[in-house]
Amino acid sequence: MHLPLHTRYTDYDTKGHVNNALYLTYFEIARAHAWRESLGMPDEPTFILAEAAVRYRSPAMVGETLEIEIRTGEIRTKAWVWEYVVRCADDGRTIADGMTVQVWFDYEARKPVPIPEALRGPLASIR
Amino acid sequence: MHLPLHTRYTDYDTKGHVNNALYLTYFEIARAHAWRESLGMPDEPTFILAEAAVRYRSPAMVGETLEIEIRTGEIRTKAWVWEYVVRCADDGRTIADGMTVQVWFDYEARKPVPIPEALRGPLASIR
Amino acid sequence: MHLPLHTRYTDYDTKGHVNNALYLTYFEIARAHAWRESLGMPDEPTFILAEAAVRYRSPAMVGETLEIEIRTGEIRTKAWVWEYVVRCADDGRTIADGMTVQVWFDYEARKPVPIPEALRGPLASIR
Amino acid sequence: MHLPLHTRYTDYDTKGHVNNALYLTYFEIARAHAWRESLGMPDEPTFILAEAAVRYRSPAMVGETLEIEIRTGEIRTKAWVWEYVVRCADDGRTIADGMTVQVWFDYEARKPVPIPEALRGPLASIR
Repeated sequence: MHLPLHTRYTDYDTKGHVNNALYLTYFEIARAHAWRESLGMPDEPTFILAEAAVRYRSPAMVGETLEIEIRTGEIRTKAWVWEYVVRCADDGRTIADGMTVQVWFDYEARKPVPIPEALRGPLASIR
Repeated sequence: MHLPLHTRYTDYDTKGHVNNALYLTYFEIARAHAWRESLGMPDEPTFILAEAAVRYRSPAMVGETLEIEIRTGEIRTKAWVWEYVVRCADDGRTIADGMTVQVWFDYEARKPVPIPEALRGPLASIR
Repeated sequence: MHLPLHTRYTDYDTKGHVNNALYLTYFEIARAHAWRESLGMPDEPTFILAEAAVRYRSPAMVGETLEIEIRTGEIRTKAWVWEYVVRCADDGRTIADGMTVQVWFDYEARKPVPIPEALRGPLASIR
Repeated sequence: MHLPLHTRYTDYDTKGHVNNALYLTYFEIARAHAWRESLGMPDEPTFILAEAAVRYRSPAMVGETLEIEIRTGEIRTKAWVWEYVVRCADDGRTIADGMTVQVWFDYEARKPVPIPEALRGPLASIR
């Protein structure tokens, strides 16, 4: 699943590059989109984030158009992996890639619970 | 009331200046401090913000130490003004100044209500 | 000139509202758009921001679609006013409005200079 | 090396937790501090970030006081690892931990170069 990224001037640092922390925000934008559009879930997520990782491949410069791809990686009993690639839409080069681990969470019981069976198929289809 | 500002690298833009929107965040830091320390209120504010204004006097550069001053301006029946000055602690020059208008708010009734009498004195003493 | 706003989950605060400082970032997004699209200018602005003001009309909630309108107000010799309205695209209500004052700036001479004659017409046409 | 973290109201999301992306900003704050204070380097870093990772242990709530620890991990020829732990200063629990990989970079030649010999000792002493 691809979507355009709408960068903001505040995303760029003194070197004219997107600041390193923003990639986790870009991942979150892709995640929220997949959550609503592919899974038809409401705005507030019912999972918690357990891990995140980013590899910085090439700095994104002011004026470049960015896009992001999100795809589901491994699906475990109570958790799953989402993988991301941020690319420059102008020349196709990879800007950054990374992943996050989500844990399905029962906010009332305050503990991880198995991913609902009905959601495993739709989750797996995000690619 | 003066307090030091702890700027972050993400606050600076491509020109090496603190981004214009950050000053409202700096005002919020001063406001939260005054709220807790001068008024002894809990973390969650019980007012709403009605207005904010900033005048940019001199850009704040990477490496400069900043401080902020907050003082109460006019106190009306249901609203009051807080005034702010951001200064460079290294050379004393004014970086930006501005104000915000707060309205005392009953979140249950969802409407503005008069500022509690007991709070008017402490509010007035912030300077 | 209208454009959609792409809010981010990080824009929302603990009350589920867009944080007050973000409106200056939204104004900046509209300004950058007008700068490039209406005026055909490069990414890096050649003006400085002198003033900004926001009036908060109604909180923007998670899940609401926002849009922003920018129009040129007064055009002086060396400065001009941009006015903004942020609306909820779902029900049309005004979320916030405000303005910024820009000063045309010669970065080499480090001083304000008159707005180029050729730019006054295009500037005035932003509405 | 420990330092206090000065959280901002904008760091918290709709659940009252520090947003996941902010931890990379907190890591950056610790990194900048180590860079200037332990290594005596100027404000602008002369390295590039190659990787970052965070594990989320326990959400940080509004009103909690946070602190961060930074220590140098592995030092390779042209790169080194910094490790971070964010803790709640009130009860000592771990909020998040993680690491970043830095590459020593020649901005003129635009390529990675060996870490200066004189810096390897001071780097190793950050713990």
